[in-house]
Amino acid sequence: MKRVAVVMGSDSDMPVVAPAVKKLEELGIPHEVRLISAHRTPETARSFASGAADSGIGVIIAAAGKAAHLAGFIAAYTCLPVIGLPVKSSFMDGLDSLLSIVQMPKGVPVATVGVDAAENAAILAAQILALTNCDLYTKLVQNKLKMSAELSEKDGMLTAVRL
Amino acid sequence: MKRVAVVMGSDSDMPVVAPAVKKLEELGIPHEVRLISAHRTPETARSFASGAADSGIGVIIAAAGKAAHLAGFIAAYTCLPVIGLPVKSSFMDGLDSLLSIVQMPKGVPVATVGVDAAENAAILAAQILALTNCDLYTKLVQNKLKMSAELSEKDGMLTAVRL
Amino acid sequence: MKRVAVVMGSDSDMPVVAPAVKKLEELGIPHEVRLISAHRTPETARSFASGAADSGIGVIIAAAGKAAHLAGFIAAYTCLPVIGLPVKSSFMDGLDSLLSIVQMPKGVPVATVGVDAAENAAILAAQILALTNCDLYTKLVQNKLKMSAELSEKDGMLTAVRL
Amino acid sequence: MKRVAVVMGSDSDMPVVAPAVKKLEELGIPHEVRLISAHRTPETARSFASGAADSGIGVIIAAAGKAAHLAGFIAAYTCLPVIGLPVKSSFMDGLDSLLSIVQMPKGVPVATVGVDAAENAAILAAQILALTNCDLYTKLVQNKLKMSAELSEKDGMLTAVRL
Amino acid sequence: MKRVAVVMGSDSDMPVVAPAVKKLEELGIPHEVRLISAHRTPETARSFASGAADSGIGVIIAAAGKAAHLAGFIAAYTCLPVIGLPVKSSFMDGLDSLLSIVQMPKGVPVATVGVDAAENAAILAAQILALTNCDLYTKLVQNKLKMSAELSEKDGMLTAVRL
Amino acid sequence: MKRVAVVMGSDSDMPVVAPAVKKLEELGIPHEVRLISAHRTPETARSFASGAADSGIGVIIAAAGKAAHLAGFIAAYTCLPVIGLPVKSSFMDGLDSLLSIVQMPKGVPVATVGVDAAENAAILAAQILALTNCDLYTKLVQNKLKMSAELSEKDGMLTAVRL
Amino acid sequence: MKRVAVVMGSDSDMPVVAPAVKKLEELGIPHEVRLISAHRTPETARSFASGAADSGIGVIIAAAGKAAHLAGFIAAYTCLPVIGLPVKSSFMDGLDSLLSIVQMPKGVPVATVGVDAAENAAILAAQILALTNCDLYTKLVQNKLKMSAELSEKDGMLTAVRL
Amino acid sequence: MKRVAVVMGSDSDMPVVAPAVKKLEELGIPHEVRLISAHRTPETARSFASGAADSGIGVIIAAAGKAAHLAGFIAAYTCLPVIGLPVKSSFMDGLDSLLSIVQMPKGVPVATVGVDAAENAAILAAQILALTNCDLYTKLVQNKLKMSAELSEKDGMLTAVRL
Repeated sequence: MKRVAVVMGSDSDMPVVAPAVKKLEELGIPHEVRLISAHRTPETARSFASGAADSGIGVIIAAAGKAAHLAGFIAAYTCLPVIGLPVKSSFMDGLDSLLSIVQMPKGVPVATVGVDAAENAAILAAQILALTNCDLYTKLVQNKLKMSAELSEKDGMLTAVRL
Repeated sequence: MKRVAVVMGSDSDMPVVAPAVKKLEELGIPHEVRLISAHRTPETARSFASGAADSGIGVIIAAAGKAAHLAGFIAAYTCLPVIGLPVKSSFMDGLDSLLSIVQMPKGVPVATVGVDAAENAAILAAQILALTNCDLYTKLVQNKLKMSAELSEKDGMLTAVRL
Repeated sequence: MKRVAVVMGSDSDMPVVAPAVKKLEELGIPHEVRLISAHRTPETARSFASGAADSGIGVIIAAAGKAAHLAGFIAAYTCLPVIGLPVKSSFMDGLDSLLSIVQMPKGVPVATVGVDAAENAAILAAQILALTNCDLYTKLVQNKLKMSAELSEKDGMLTAVRL
Repeated sequence: MKRVAVVMGSDSDMPVVAPAVKKLEELGIPHEVRLISAHRTPETARSFASGAADSGIGVIIAAAGKAAHLAGFIAAYTCLPVIGLPVKSSFMDGLDSLLSIVQMPKGVPVATVGVDAAENAAILAAQILALTNCDLYTKLVQNKLKMSAELSEKDGMLTAVRL
Repeated sequence: MKRVAVVMGSDSDMPVVAPAVKKLEELGIPHEVRLISAHRTPETARSFASGAADSGIGVIIAAAGKAAHLAGFIAAYTCLPVIGLPVKSSFMDGLDSLLSIVQMPKGVPVATVGVDAAENAAILAAQILALTNCDLYTKLVQNKLKMSAELSEKDGMLTAVRL
Repeated sequence: MKRVAVVMGSDSDMPVVAPAVKKLEELGIPHEVRLISAHRTPETARSFASGAADSGIGVIIAAAGKAAHLAGFIAAYTCLPVIGLPVKSSFMDGLDSLLSIVQMPKGVPVATVGVDAAENAAILAAQILALTNCDLYTKLVQNKLKMSAELSEKDGMLTAVRL
Repeated sequence: MKRVAVVMGSDSDMPVVAPAVKKLEELGIPHEVRLISAHRTPETARSFASGAADSGIGVIIAAAGKAAHLAGFIAAYTCLPVIGLPVKSSFMDGLDSLLSIVQMPKGVPVATVGVDAAENAAILAAQILALTNCDLYTKLVQNKLKMSAELSEKDGMLTAVRL
Repeated sequence: MKRVAVVMGSDSDMPVVAPAVKKLEELGIPHEVRLISAHRTPETARSFASGAADSGIGVIIAAAGKAAHLAGFIAAYTCLPVIGLPVKSSFMDGLDSLLSIVQMPKGVPVATVGVDAAENAAILAAQILALTNCDLYTKLVQNKLKMSAELSEKDGMLTAVRL
């Protein structure tokens, strides 16, 4: 299976990104975690992005906040799917991060998930890889069923309590 | 190659969605176009989404405006990657559409592109399918090079004119 | 009297929803509380909504946050009045929840109350049921008078103190 | 059947409100249309709202724009369900109207529909009255089926064309 | 001198309003403080506003939050200048309060100050009354000079420290 | 009677400001119109504001758009009441103008009216001057009654037509 | 004198950028205009930015819209002052462009001007270069005086007309 | 080398501004810190701004919050580059400050940095002065390299840990 790269623009993004890494582990998806900034280490970003496809990476999750250019920068240098994870900034709960990531110009898409929605970024990466990986697809289906069952159980208890 | 389904919530979304269909054709990606509403034809949405994977669909692009539930509705019923395309509404240029699509709860991601960014939705779908399709990947690389060359040419003319 | 169903999308919404339940109890309105998610347990949502009218439910209060599709999902499957209660999310104080609920497309309305305004959701449900229930209507009138009297008393004390 | 009152704050709101009136006519619901302003004719607003229940009105639709106080004003004087219809203003597409209507304080709810969503206001009013009117309920169900059938037909044509 | 009435819509607004009262006392302006809600005690609001001019009130400061109709309600019933004080709500820092107060329709102005800017509301009231009261005008001028002197002193100390 | 000065920051604001001038004329209030910019003619703004009170001006209406500093600039140099009129800019319908005017720091209030609400600015100025001018107060009361009568008449015609 | 480079991300930005070029010409500042995209021609952007200082460029004006990464991209590769010019997009009048440009992370500033404020970008560039160029500084002072004189003349005519 | 003046509108802005002062010290740039308000000490602001160029100041950093007029006020009185630093207010995280600073009218630019981005304001000032100061330019380049090296080191550790 191809690897998922989880890239973040600042080490302060680590706690936000952690659930993505955890979910990838849970799903048994090979991955790497990198600390690369579009603004502070642009050359690293460039060589990382340019070489990603050849190094066996299949999907890139890029997390950044404020004027969050990381996902777009990477998308400029690769044809792999890039998932943008807007990190909640101290300005309007990350509206700046969200718009800087999602509003990409024609020709260079970024697959954006919700603000701080790291786990969803990982699941999306898994869904992409699962297209040609039956085992992983099965895991995702089971994940969905489990999620559903857990909520149903809580719903059942709620109803029971009230009867 | 798996098919891409382009689903829209209203026939008024047709002009917005058109560039996605055109791009898929250009890239030679098999696709189907559907008119399905989460609110008006929920049963169709449900059977479509539940059966999508088995019917040979690989990626779903869901376009909707306002309280745009279509992408999330479909994502609830499938483990395929769902690309959400927010359609510009008459309220704050589609801020409602964007937030209704991108801010999905934990466990059910939607890969959101920019407001009215239909072509990007198609390219993202292509990038996903290209992970295991070298020909398509090559087309995307060439696309990128062409886009780059066109802009460089315009840049060259601009510089020439001014010298 | 028909029942009011209070449905929430996540058990984390419980504290927000509680005042609605309390107010329904206070007013002696039969009700049930359910934990149903449009995205995690869509089949439950569907069967609940489809069967609501026949099971004696008269009004449905649906509380959800972020890309809050629950109220709209339910409204797609029933002709009962659906009250949408936007739950304050961690993004712009629930602007995402509010817009995802109130901006419904033509044909499928959701009666939206303010962000986290659970008590108002319950009173609105009561006002609807009171249309054909004189006792309940009287209770609502008395409620209003009491609310008015309480504020008048505080106003009186304030004026007295300052004289 | 009780009547629905459609009240608007300015005669410039007439075109926005028109689809509500048309839908009420279509559904055979008795109704009246009034031009009453919370700020210009407050005494009329007050006597209208205070006397609404006794005059046979069951639901009030109140349409207003900008600092849209009409729905809240009326709700202060009656225990009938009040549906607030935010009219698109020239400021941020009616964000002012929407917030002025939906963010009501505790104790005095307004059932808010989307900006300029007049038809939905009428359908919501109908859903409320249909709780104790089987014929009207049946009409609403048929309405829903028709809406669904129309979209399905268009979907079918779309698919046919492309085959 | 005419009195200033400080009216607030909820006793929870008291801490926000307090600096206005303090400033009025400081400036020796006769005033009264009232707890009146447009939605909970509309009849009190109406009789208060209608009778304000005759009872010797010159300016009314109306503080309210969320769908803040109080200032507009009062302005509908009087020709006295009404100062609207938007109280910070739990939604977008009081954007709802601000828009509900400032965006009044043609013919019925409300003189709006900043969110939670109670002291400014009092100074504005004083400026209005000072138009025909030389002593008060002199106090305001001195106030301004004092404010200026205090800042200049701090500026001087800052510069001194750094030399 | 003291004069009202209507000051605007750019001659492009003229059409927005015109209804204020017209209303002042209608009410027989002496006034002057000036074109003064806080950024382009700050010295004029300064001498105008400093000398306003002594030159017989009673109220200043300051209209400006974008980073609208004019009203605040003038308020810094005078103790007269300053009415800020936010002019609709090409950015978010004048949200920049509104916030730049209304959010004044402690000690220096600006009485803000709605975006482009020139007539309301004039009426507010009149209400202020009317505090010590019975004739003007009477005109304002009549104005209000006329406004009310006009709407009532339209309401009457509306009702008549439908009977 | 060092040159000013005016870089834009798309040829559709040309009309927005034109006033900057015109102003630079007017002020006799040597300049070049380039069409370079952070997303479509990142390598050009990189070599341009890296080499700018050595090629005699003193200030860079970077204009872009939507997820406007151009200014930040360039700032990552140079220590020259970079002026960011947000181009009005079709989403919320360029709020996305503005936030993507101004909210840069620590260490990599972009000097942002208003949305579509091309002339101001040019004047700012001139102010920077004028720090060590007396002639240019004199031109800017004269520019300011002329601007002031023009407005004063219009103000004078306005006053004259009304006397 | 010319001095940088750091001006703030209130002593409560001190903690926000501190990193700018620290960075200027670090870079060995002569500077002064002033406490000047456009609204409370406008005459000081005026004489400061008018005399800045002659007193050896090269760049002015102006920090203010809410209706933040300081930077614009200063820019009206000088042709030096003025850097606007929006201070986070209690309203929408400083959206008011940002718009009041960045949206300057034609002819009077302010070089705006991000909300609370004091260090960036200092670096921008340094970049401007470095245009004709090789030593300072070298420091900035080294700064950039150091910043890059630090992040790379952290990235290296991250990768090492996970191998």
